[in-house]
Amino acid sequence: MNANNASPAPARVINGVDTDALFATIDAVKADPGLAEFQFRADNRWLDGGHNRSTIKGFRGCRQEDQTRTAPFVMDADEPPVLLGRDAGANPVEYVLHALAACLTTTMVYHAAARGIAIRGIESRLEGDLDLRGFLGLDDTVRKGYREVRVLFDVDSDASPEVLRELAKYSPVYDIVSNSLPVKVQVRTSA
Amino acid sequence: MNANNASPAPARVINGVDTDALFATIDAVKADPGLAEFQFRADNRWLDGGHNRSTIKGFRGCRQEDQTRTAPFVMDADEPPVLLGRDAGANPVEYVLHALAACLTTTMVYHAAARGIAIRGIESRLEGDLDLRGFLGLDDTVRKGYREVRVLFDVDSDASPEVLRELAKYSPVYDIVSNSLPVKVQVRTSA
Repeated sequence: MNANNASPAPARVINGVDTDALFATIDAVKADPGLAEFQFRADNRWLDGGHNRSTIKGFRGCRQEDQTRTAPFVMDADEPPVLLGRDAGANPVEYVLHALAACLTTTMVYHAAARGIAIRGIESRLEGDLDLRGFLGLDDTVRKGYREVRVLFDVDSDASPEVLRELAKYSPVYDIVSNSLPVKVQVRTSA
Repeated sequence: MNANNASPAPARVINGVDTDALFATIDAVKADPGLAEFQFRADNRWLDGGHNRSTIKGFRGCRQEDQTRTAPFVMDADEPPVLLGRDAGANPVEYVLHALAACLTTTMVYHAAARGIAIRGIESRLEGDLDLRGFLGLDDTVRKGYREVRVLFDVDSDASPEVLRELAKYSPVYDIVSNSLPVKVQVRTSA
């Protein structure tokens, strides 16, 4: 931005990640762990049948409410015809695969950047096996969600597959899906 | 579609769900449990930094590959500036909240329809608390994903909040997030 020789050195960017900012974040959190507390949110409205819509905008982090987002992200979920919907969007369990793929990828990229490991490309394919009898309540021994999820990454990097896999496992969504988590559901009715 | 008096009775639609088709699905699965086996998939490609993109199209169910979807659903994930991204999409843990909201909502709607319970409207608000020290690897005692997720539903229905809450808990994504699940991650490199 500034060709003057006295300007600061350009940020060290690895894998598209500003590692100076990353290390500054780590140092700030080490000095003040309260900065690491984040709260993310979503609002959802049912439209019809299997079709509903989420809007996502505000979140809290670093002891303040985010002010940078000017418009919400809007995403629709629906079911395909075989699951009695009109296919106006991916279905909820497909969104889980997207969230998991995205989080493992970003985590691999960020943690590699912090270690100076260059990544030139990442593609992944995810599969999740689900037995609908759980959802339908036909068999108590069949779980409602996925029985297993498989993730296959193809990464263009000189680092070893083992190292990249370990880096990806810092992923928050990998933790959320792999491990149990308290989800508190409250319902109020207008009736 | 057909005004002829000899045409079949119209499908019984409750909450936008064709309950005739729903009960036919349940009967078919009872007679042949293999029809209930589904496999959902996602493909993801890293773009830069915290930005990546999933495409979701094919899935398998009822012993066949879906032929109804003609175009993929495409969704971008990124991180906001405070998390070193450019905010080109909701972030992965926000997508988890969307998936959970969508699935609890659809599940409440479908299971209510099966019981003849009319629902006139549903809105929900979700919050998830996350301590970034887990992701950053700064404290092994801090988990990487959400510590807790809260879901508040406002439902316009004559059914009781307790009944609606129990119906929602047939949700596959509620199961995925609440309970542990084997996620197998494999990495191949081109190096």
